Amino acid sequence: MGHVRAEAIAADPGTKLRLVFDPIRDRSKELSGRFGASAIGTVEEALSDSTIDIVFVCTPSTDHPDLVIAAARAGKAIFCEKPLATTAELARAAEQSVAAAGVVAAMGFSKRFDPGHRLLEDQVRDGAIGDVAMVVLTNRDPNTASYQPLIDYLGQVHDTAPGGLIRESTVHDLDTARALLGEEPIEVFAVGSTRAGSAMAAIGEIDTLMVTLRTAGGRLCQINGSWHADYGYDQRIEVLGTAGMLRLENPPRPAVVRHDQAGAHVGRMYGGPPGTYDFWRYAFAEAYVAETHAFLDVVRTRGTPRISIHDGVRAQVLVEATVASWQQANPVQIPSD
Amino acid sequence: MGHVRAEAIAADPGTKLRLVFDPIRDRSKELSGRFGASAIGTVEEALSDSTIDIVFVCTPSTDHPDLVIAAARAGKAIFCEKPLATTAELARAAEQSVAAAGVVAAMGFSKRFDPGHRLLEDQVRDGAIGDVAMVVLTNRDPNTASYQPLIDYLGQVHDTAPGGLIRESTVHDLDTARALLGEEPIEVFAVGSTRAGSAMAAIGEIDTLMVTLRTAGGRLCQINGSWHADYGYDQRIEVLGTAGMLRLENPPRPAVVRHDQAGAHVGRMYGGPPGTYDFWRYAFAEAYVAETHAFLDVVRTRGTPRISIHDGVRAQVLVEATVASWQQANPVQIPSD
Amino acid sequence: MGHVRAEAIAADPGTKLRLVFDPIRDRSKELSGRFGASAIGTVEEALSDSTIDIVFVCTPSTDHPDLVIAAARAGKAIFCEKPLATTAELARAAEQSVAAAGVVAAMGFSKRFDPGHRLLEDQVRDGAIGDVAMVVLTNRDPNTASYQPLIDYLGQVHDTAPGGLIRESTVHDLDTARALLGEEPIEVFAVGSTRAGSAMAAIGEIDTLMVTLRTAGGRLCQINGSWHADYGYDQRIEVLGTAGMLRLENPPRPAVVRHDQAGAHVGRMYGGPPGTYDFWRYAFAEAYVAETHAFLDVVRTRGTPRISIHDGVRAQVLVEATVASWQQANPVQIPSD
Amino acid sequence: MGHVRAEAIAADPGTKLRLVFDPIRDRSKELSGRFGASAIGTVEEALSDSTIDIVFVCTPSTDHPDLVIAAARAGKAIFCEKPLATTAELARAAEQSVAAAGVVAAMGFSKRFDPGHRLLEDQVRDGAIGDVAMVVLTNRDPNTASYQPLIDYLGQVHDTAPGGLIRESTVHDLDTARALLGEEPIEVFAVGSTRAGSAMAAIGEIDTLMVTLRTAGGRLCQINGSWHADYGYDQRIEVLGTAGMLRLENPPRPAVVRHDQAGAHVGRMYGGPPGTYDFWRYAFAEAYVAETHAFLDVVRTRGTPRISIHDGVRAQVLVEATVASWQQANPVQIPSD
Repeated sequence: MGHVRAEAIAADPGTKLRLVFDPIRDRSKELSGRFGASAIGTVEEALSDSTIDIVFVCTPSTDHPDLVIAAARAGKAIFCEKPLATTAELARAAEQSVAAAGVVAAMGFSKRFDPGHRLLEDQVRDGAIGDVAMVVLTNRDPNTASYQPLIDYLGQVHDTAPGGLIRESTVHDLDTARALLGEEPIEVFAVGSTRAGSAMAAIGEIDTLMVTLRTAGGRLCQINGSWHADYGYDQRIEVLGTAGMLRLENPPRPAVVRHDQAGAHVGRMYGGPPGTYDFWRYAFAEAYVAETHAFLDVVRTRGTPRISIHDGVRAQVLVEATVASWQQANPVQIPSD
Repeated sequence: MGHVRAEAIAADPGTKLRLVFDPIRDRSKELSGRFGASAIGTVEEALSDSTIDIVFVCTPSTDHPDLVIAAARAGKAIFCEKPLATTAELARAAEQSVAAAGVVAAMGFSKRFDPGHRLLEDQVRDGAIGDVAMVVLTNRDPNTASYQPLIDYLGQVHDTAPGGLIRESTVHDLDTARALLGEEPIEVFAVGSTRAGSAMAAIGEIDTLMVTLRTAGGRLCQINGSWHADYGYDQRIEVLGTAGMLRLENPPRPAVVRHDQAGAHVGRMYGGPPGTYDFWRYAFAEAYVAETHAFLDVVRTRGTPRISIHDGVRAQVLVEATVASWQQANPVQIPSD
Repeated sequence: MGHVRAEAIAADPGTKLRLVFDPIRDRSKELSGRFGASAIGTVEEALSDSTIDIVFVCTPSTDHPDLVIAAARAGKAIFCEKPLATTAELARAAEQSVAAAGVVAAMGFSKRFDPGHRLLEDQVRDGAIGDVAMVVLTNRDPNTASYQPLIDYLGQVHDTAPGGLIRESTVHDLDTARALLGEEPIEVFAVGSTRAGSAMAAIGEIDTLMVTLRTAGGRLCQINGSWHADYGYDQRIEVLGTAGMLRLENPPRPAVVRHDQAGAHVGRMYGGPPGTYDFWRYAFAEAYVAETHAFLDVVRTRGTPRISIHDGVRAQVLVEATVASWQQANPVQIPSD
Repeated sequence: MGHVRAEAIAADPGTKLRLVFDPIRDRSKELSGRFGASAIGTVEEALSDSTIDIVFVCTPSTDHPDLVIAAARAGKAIFCEKPLATTAELARAAEQSVAAAGVVAAMGFSKRFDPGHRLLEDQVRDGAIGDVAMVVLTNRDPNTASYQPLIDYLGQVHDTAPGGLIRESTVHDLDTARALLGEEPIEVFAVGSTRAGSAMAAIGEIDTLMVTLRTAGGRLCQINGSWHADYGYDQRIEVLGTAGMLRLENPPRPAVVRHDQAGAHVGRMYGGPPGTYDFWRYAFAEAYVAETHAFLDVVRTRGTPRISIHDGVRAQVLVEATVASWQQANPVQIPSD
């Protein structure tokens, strides 16, 4: 993600990428060189540099809260990739630091900056379908369940952070659900499974998931997730309200339809050739740039980010309740703060 | 078509199928028996029977004008399958008889009773897209060019009635064009061709056609036709007006979409298995019934048929001008009456 | 439904509608008169008539099991509208009678005879998408929650048979889920709610529902239901398997797309004008006829009905578990027989 | 277009924008400043600079041939925006200079670098639908006919270069037709008109057009064009072959579908708010970048451009024949070289 953000920053006429930190020195040199920035040896070099205004936190998740806290204390504006932290407690600590420092800070939930997603969210907020009654979210990845680096990583953290599918993928939907329901879910029920022969099964993880959320106002949400949707990357949203229904299909792509004696055919959704695991980059390429630029605008105008650090805390609270429901095979109440 | 109309008449609670004439006696017995009617040996038996109110003319085209004239003189209400006649002159003679007798009479251009077609035509008439500027018609058959009985028939009549594709198929589009343009075309340009190896080429006929129509008011229409669209029966309409555009895709059909690693797939359009030549029946099944019932209602209420005998005359005039343009490779002016 | 079945029987060339029973004598006279049958004063007249082969049970649900049992004892072939009974216990009793009598008997779950639904179910069964991992069902009615006769009826039976939405509408999805999952669900979780001001709330009923099913093999199913989808009758199916995904959108309808300065517009889904409550008839008109004819063929050939009395029992077992889960706000295990 | 190309060049890591010429000095300063280039006072400064490898010709059409000839003589690689020249004679002269100099040169017909267009063209070329029988092209602009600067310009050149719609817009379709038909058209028939009240009528120009092309091999093409399609920018392609049919709808865009009691609605196609005339930039943004980068790759590898200067000549020959057909109201034969 560091590369994705760096490219988007470089395309912003009012911002300059100055310093790059990566514990692997060659990588920081490569990235900084490409954009005319400098590679630094410690994060502190950036935090103590008074000419630096903004910090992008694109590290592994476990480092997020410490870096957010340090950047907040140094008075920098902060953009933090999702998740804010690996536990709700750590997420809350980061939120408190940001609040105490009074800095501008935003969470990265990039899908919500996809042009279609944004259009839908705006319409819901503007009352285009009246009061929301029901949200249905589809979030399927083509071949994540067989991506060895992910399997290795999830195996290592399984004992302390089980439910990798929920933590890495469903977290987006939980964030989206909050935005579309317009109020906090108070209860979650989750049920997961693995396909026969899935490498996820061997490490106690799941590759298939269904989640139900309920709010105090009786609004309901269903999420279905898969890391085994071999037909492609499938991302859809549906919102039913008292005055209508909104549907967002997958990010649009050029589509030549071929008609022959067998019927009509159109090329696959985003997903790339077998062995490709960065399909999401193609589907949401515009979203990463739009999100980065929106954040830079917020910093310039000292505005309010569309997705706040508090949203990051709430997403992590929902993640933990969802994991608990999956593990306990029962509905779980969601703490209100 | 006799069977199709008989079934639709049987389903009308206010009408009784009484007499069936077919020069092949076994066929008239089979059909009349199925619906509790009587087979007769001559058309005159029906025309001279004062308890008979309505005549359906479903014979070969060459017999249409004589039968219409005889039925009009007998004072019967008349439904005549397209075309009204094989020449514009014969068509005009039939029209005059109908007018002189003052009977209710309608032409059968069934596609215009397809629910979608009717919806579109009503919207155009109601001004939903303002003033019409442009009409685009697509009319493709899956495998007509290799249907031997048709090839034999067109070969026999080629010298006296060339342009079978225009006479049998495009005639529908010429009728539709008149209805949608809202004024008479004054000029037509047609260009045709045959695919390599097409049986149509051997008899001097075409299987591929493009037609352009122009009205006095500057409204334009394009028609493209094929008897070789092996992917299915493809029938579409587009109308551009000063306030918008209407599109009608093919008659709807149940469509399960299958997504796999190669993309998304949906079964073929109407067309049936190889060797099937009555695909149009499936696509427009509702239209035949709706058209028959609409005519019976018009007779009962002494109303005005949606498609009149005059429309049959005008369609034939357009057919002949289109054939002439194709043969002369030049635009042809269309007589105004 | 009596009328719908009578029409379909009349259109079957090999079957004759002979006797009609309705406790309201005028209605039985009207219906029998329309199809050349006789109105009878008691059901026994039909059951004791040895020239009667088949009985259609189209009465209120509470009478279904007694009538099925009586017809089975009389040795008649039986078609029973859903549900088989109002309790699983009564349903099992009916199943036992049918089994003991050895008669051909079928349940009416008409949606599964919709051409698209059938196509999808066949593809799933034929392995077109490999092993099923996930089913998602959408079942929304436009305005049922404000249909006064239904509100009155549900109010009356609420104490003994709560969960009207589940019993009347979701029962279809539970039946469909069994067919598509290919194995019995072992657990159900349901959550329901009512919109503000819904008449359903006043009688303790719900108008919005989300259900999750799980099978022993780890296959999952989500159902979302609404009686308040004012935009139209919305019926969709999605099945994700190991080799692909199938989607069935709503029953197709003629669709003229209008493009103007505001965008593209197409007429509403089935739902009829405000105040219309038989939208389902239009959407599934073909299904009722196909289902009736398929049953008559099964009787003629002494074949096996696609939907058996046992399927009716299982659907009722699932209904009761779903109602229990909704009431208890917890997952409920489903009895295996 | 100068800006569009400059941006795309800046995004190419292997190329540097060095010099910018614009007769309006302020504009060349602004553009060169933005990309770290220098503004020059004469074109010769660039042509005589041996460190300059490539020239982009983005001037008014009348200057194209002279600049191409001068750049060819200077040994530069050349990218020329469409059209190559305002007459076929001048276009041929430019082609001869390029051929004599042996430089790499490409024409800019950007639509053909739209990802969907390219996909379709590749599939046609790879035989996905067998032998091509028919091409249908739709090319409609939302509000060009009321764009005053264009009306002024066309009014000025009407006497020497009538048929502005053909020269400015249909030229793209004529180029596309050649690419898809796979052989040269030998005959063209065009008919045009103006809507009542169109400003185009006042200057003798048209805003609505239908064109038919025919090749020696009997392949046919229909084009329909409009500068009055107020519903949006509408760009579609259809190709019918002996083994199937390909359809390309408009460039994809994010589409939230809203369902309400009136039906389903989706925002308009590209077209922008009233008064916006650069809708094409949004629809084909990717195409401009892809085309520029493809050309730079061709220069680097000394490869063959996808669209050559000869294609520019042929497009101009087709434009002139189409204009002649429109003016003479008769089919016109197309010179073969």
